[in-house]
Amino acid sequence: MNDENDFPLLLTPGPLTTSARVKEAMLNDWGSRDGAFIEMTARVSAGLAGLAGMEGADASHVCVPLQGSGNFAVEAMLQSVLPADGKALIAINGAYGRRMGEICGRMGRAWIPLETPEDTPPAPVELERALRADPTISHVAVVHCETTSGILNPLAEIAQTVKAQGRSLLVDAMSSFGALPLDLTQIQAQAVAGSANKCLEGVPGLAFVIAQRATLEGPAHSTSLSLDLADQWRGFQATGQWRFTPPTQVLAALDQALIELEEEGGIAGRLARYRENCRILMEGLSGLGLDCFLDAQLQAPIIVTFHAPVDANYQFDIFYEKLRARGYAIYPGKLTHAPSFRIGCIGRIDARIMRDVVEAIGDVLAEMEVRQRGRANYVPGGID
Amino acid sequence: MNDENDFPLLLTPGPLTTSARVKEAMLNDWGSRDGAFIEMTARVSAGLAGLAGMEGADASHVCVPLQGSGNFAVEAMLQSVLPADGKALIAINGAYGRRMGEICGRMGRAWIPLETPEDTPPAPVELERALRADPTISHVAVVHCETTSGILNPLAEIAQTVKAQGRSLLVDAMSSFGALPLDLTQIQAQAVAGSANKCLEGVPGLAFVIAQRATLEGPAHSTSLSLDLADQWRGFQATGQWRFTPPTQVLAALDQALIELEEEGGIAGRLARYRENCRILMEGLSGLGLDCFLDAQLQAPIIVTFHAPVDANYQFDIFYEKLRARGYAIYPGKLTHAPSFRIGCIGRIDARIMRDVVEAIGDVLAEMEVRQRGRANYVPGGID
Repeated sequence: MNDENDFPLLLTPGPLTTSARVKEAMLNDWGSRDGAFIEMTARVSAGLAGLAGMEGADASHVCVPLQGSGNFAVEAMLQSVLPADGKALIAINGAYGRRMGEICGRMGRAWIPLETPEDTPPAPVELERALRADPTISHVAVVHCETTSGILNPLAEIAQTVKAQGRSLLVDAMSSFGALPLDLTQIQAQAVAGSANKCLEGVPGLAFVIAQRATLEGPAHSTSLSLDLADQWRGFQATGQWRFTPPTQVLAALDQALIELEEEGGIAGRLARYRENCRILMEGLSGLGLDCFLDAQLQAPIIVTFHAPVDANYQFDIFYEKLRARGYAIYPGKLTHAPSFRIGCIGRIDARIMRDVVEAIGDVLAEMEVRQRGRANYVPGGID
Repeated sequence: MNDENDFPLLLTPGPLTTSARVKEAMLNDWGSRDGAFIEMTARVSAGLAGLAGMEGADASHVCVPLQGSGNFAVEAMLQSVLPADGKALIAINGAYGRRMGEICGRMGRAWIPLETPEDTPPAPVELERALRADPTISHVAVVHCETTSGILNPLAEIAQTVKAQGRSLLVDAMSSFGALPLDLTQIQAQAVAGSANKCLEGVPGLAFVIAQRATLEGPAHSTSLSLDLADQWRGFQATGQWRFTPPTQVLAALDQALIELEEEGGIAGRLARYRENCRILMEGLSGLGLDCFLDAQLQAPIIVTFHAPVDANYQFDIFYEKLRARGYAIYPGKLTHAPSFRIGCIGRIDARIMRDVVEAIGDVLAEMEVRQRGRANYVPGGID
């Protein structure tokens, strides 16, 4: 069962490689209404809120865990926070920003995009102009690290502008939460969505929103019962129990993953390891003649997009399968206008593994006789 | 970690006790876009559809797995199938029927209840009358086994009436799927919702809807992107991949659970074991002077509701804790108008365990000095 050909190391933005102890935490059955599980839910929720600077019973924000994938939490955030007469401005420089717009459209909520190319963060001055131009905008939604490219969006500056303009901020922190600091006492977002199976290094099946308590206690907005965070929160408050069956084993894995995050030195310790992974990867592939898509100062140490080699001998599927045969699963590119591939820096991956990955990539490109590795053509203006 | 006080056997309607092999199937990390996982998704989906009589690529119905709990699948079914100008008649004799009404309300879809008391199945003749009276009703939704009481609703008769009246049928088969036969070539429902962690004996975090292919290929209705089954289905068709991160370990557990269902002789074999569990439980507790809530012919072999003893020495919390200390987690009652408790017959539980449960309950009641065990007062007319 543990043949590396069946189970390659995952160099992806999640689901990712988790520790053995995290997976072993799933070897029990919990009663979802039993005291032990109620305690675990409370412990995990408090731990997640604490990572965002929200500690103690009187904190302004609380963590509401939710069944499902990260997208479920992003939608739950939008469903539960945007009133019927609200309007969201969504900063878009990749697929995850675009998806927030799609979610708003389905819900029947007004929204407008603030688009920039996939290699360009939104400029706070443009954001300010857009907010000044349209006083009906109630909320600004932004993706912290857009895994389409791996770009780090300037959250602190955006938050400052949103606050100065008297609007509310919503953050999709899916791929950054647990590795990039996000202190809600500083950022003052109304809500932040995250997931168990990204930088927290848990397994997939559970996500969460850390939201203003006052919002959750206000009127219900959601067109979906399942994704209504206010109702979910009332359930936890009333009984400590989940409204609907929780993914018990997945929560247990996250409980263990939070212990391991603490052991690693918290967010700072984890970020240091991911930064080193990212440095080795970028330097190593640069040494192989492969170009990063993003300028270095825009690159989050989460996932790196590389231009596909322009050589006719290069085909992603073959490249993927040859790396997989060596025990590494990488990620396809997601850029709109340039062929690319992506390699994640997150999960139970360390410097030694990353050096092996670089070596394996060099071997595979040599085996494929790929020689032209320069930057392929990219049309930076284009966003679908 | 495996102290029985920490991990009691779960005599609940799910999450329930699963086999060691099912849990061990979670000890790996899968890449969600990797070929091995794509194959697993296809295998599980085909297996689930096959259990409902829908085999092969040209079957009229397909299985669409979904992240989240069973309620997410029920909502996804309603969201994806009910058009904006549709109207649902919902048969209600417990909390799960009521919840479907709540979901429709949130979505802004018209619905009316067909209510019966919690110990009474809907009468097909009443259903027929309601459908004749209101030609704007497009859909009828029914819970197969309502775990509020454990009642088995008469699905075949309801399906016949719905068909004769030219309406569409939606079935919440959450707590029955995998143990009670449900052949879609006979029942001809438009969609049926089920869950991994009930009679299929997987772990929680994944549910599914087996829906008419033509419906999924029709216009989009859902006010939620996450819960849109048509979009989810298009994703599987296009690439074999999940639109949004799947609960990889939970799917692997279900894959193993389906192997074990097959080993047990499929639905017939599983039903035989659950029936025997249920018989031992009902006879045993009857011998202890405890009364079942339902008439025997209405009782599904899934979960049994017992009237709470009327003795002042009986308190559910103490009863629960004493049984838990002996290694058994039971379930609280959920009836609207009578104190009760529930005991599940499903999961990796066999006749030997059930006999031990009966003995433990006898011991605990004796220890609590509970003597009056007759039927408590119940107001059968009442539904909130």
